[in-house]
Amino acid sequence: MKIEVSFSAAHLDEMQLREKNVVVIDVLRASTTITTALANGAREIIPVATIENAVKVSGSLFGDVTLRGGERNGKIIQGFNLGNSPLEYGPATVRGKSIIYCTTNGSVALVRARHARNLLVGSFVNLTRLVEFMSEVSADFLLLCAGRVPALGGFSLEDAVCAGMIIDRLSKEVAEVLDLSDGAVAARTLFKSHGRSIPKLLKSSDHGKYLAQIGFTEDLKICSAVDGVPVLPVWTGTSLRLRKEDAGKGAAESVPAEKPPTT
Amino acid sequence: MKIEVSFSAAHLDEMQLREKNVVVIDVLRASTTITTALANGAREIIPVATIENAVKVSGSLFGDVTLRGGERNGKIIQGFNLGNSPLEYGPATVRGKSIIYCTTNGSVALVRARHARNLLVGSFVNLTRLVEFMSEVSADFLLLCAGRVPALGGFSLEDAVCAGMIIDRLSKEVAEVLDLSDGAVAARTLFKSHGRSIPKLLKSSDHGKYLAQIGFTEDLKICSAVDGVPVLPVWTGTSLRLRKEDAGKGAAESVPAEKPPTT
Repeated sequence: MKIEVSFSAAHLDEMQLREKNVVVIDVLRASTTITTALANGAREIIPVATIENAVKVSGSLFGDVTLRGGERNGKIIQGFNLGNSPLEYGPATVRGKSIIYCTTNGSVALVRARHARNLLVGSFVNLTRLVEFMSEVSADFLLLCAGRVPALGGFSLEDAVCAGMIIDRLSKEVAEVLDLSDGAVAARTLFKSHGRSIPKLLKSSDHGKYLAQIGFTEDLKICSAVDGVPVLPVWTGTSLRLRKEDAGKGAAESVPAEKPPTT
Repeated sequence: MKIEVSFSAAHLDEMQLREKNVVVIDVLRASTTITTALANGAREIIPVATIENAVKVSGSLFGDVTLRGGERNGKIIQGFNLGNSPLEYGPATVRGKSIIYCTTNGSVALVRARHARNLLVGSFVNLTRLVEFMSEVSADFLLLCAGRVPALGGFSLEDAVCAGMIIDRLSKEVAEVLDLSDGAVAARTLFKSHGRSIPKLLKSSDHGKYLAQIGFTEDLKICSAVDGVPVLPVWTGTSLRLRKEDAGKGAAESVPAEKPPTT
């Protein structure tokens, strides 16, 4: 079982990801928000790479069952219903809805990986559920950190540490010795050094500091709750949905009261 | 003094690197080979991004003072005089020569960074000399790991650990507390965990294993010799040369007998 890690999606294209088993990791916040929305009863998440595509896709869907969510510079996009905070994706808002979803890094990585054999969404909030699935499948995997485009190099520490925690757990779950790429070796090392307190890690990371600055301190707590939302979003070929086993599990109790959407 | 690290050059463009102070790190082997060639008396190294450009540039130079060096898949390029092993760049071969230099990752990173304010070449073999220069300049720096294109994500552990060692040394040299990006924090952690034995690190890294497989075990030893070639290649606007203080310092005694070039 070979495990590779890419610390950014910026330079990968669709062809390189085709037929691979890919886990997209965007701890702050796309992976966490998608997982929360589906656990709270959203019908599906449709990731798009650009705002233009979000508008195009919305045109072909019925308005009353569709929401547009996402961010630029961490903030809600003009004309969208929802930003990118998991707090905005509560049951009353998202139940039964198709959500067209556009973010700077996470949704772009998901679109690039859409021809993967298996495409899953990973984060701290669904880590154990993800590792269970990976050890069942028992195939080679690429852990694709969405990373952080404004940073030169696109590296984000919280995604790397999450990848390392997945590898660490997986190595205890499966019988065979994992074959780790340089990136996977590095991710595991980073988890061992920086993974003792996930809340502290998120607060001290570059993107965590930025989100706190613009008022999303509460999001950092939610995104650091290991196994807070124990369901697994999977790509179905057209959108992300919950695995059948997970559907109907409902929101984790730890998800706080939601904010009202912009209409 | 802000220090950023990028673990790959694949997704950076010239505009992002313009006016920055950039250190290109390609331990296996471009940085080591360039440093060795200049210490052994080469007049200059002219990095090019493609074989086509190497041919074009050679056309405008005199044949008797020019050599073409580089690699594809670690091996010498057809029609070139030299491969990419530092062993091929001994004094009898390179003294007084302009070397047009084309590799898969290192020379590409150098070409992308050619409009930087300061552009330097870093590796284990000239680490102390580089850190001295950085602490003299005392400005913000980007440590640009050339990485490894065939790997998804382009990450290479030996370049990351070298960046981390530079940061660790620098933090002891300068009075102020360094302002580290997520990538810089990660690099320092990777140095602390994997930097105890550089020869072992190179042997166990993905690219080190590949180079050993194709017969370059000796190169791994040379590339892991910390301060084995204590001179600093700097970009002059048209090519890489030694800093004036370093010129004439000659080859380090540790550089073994050279292989003859292909003519």
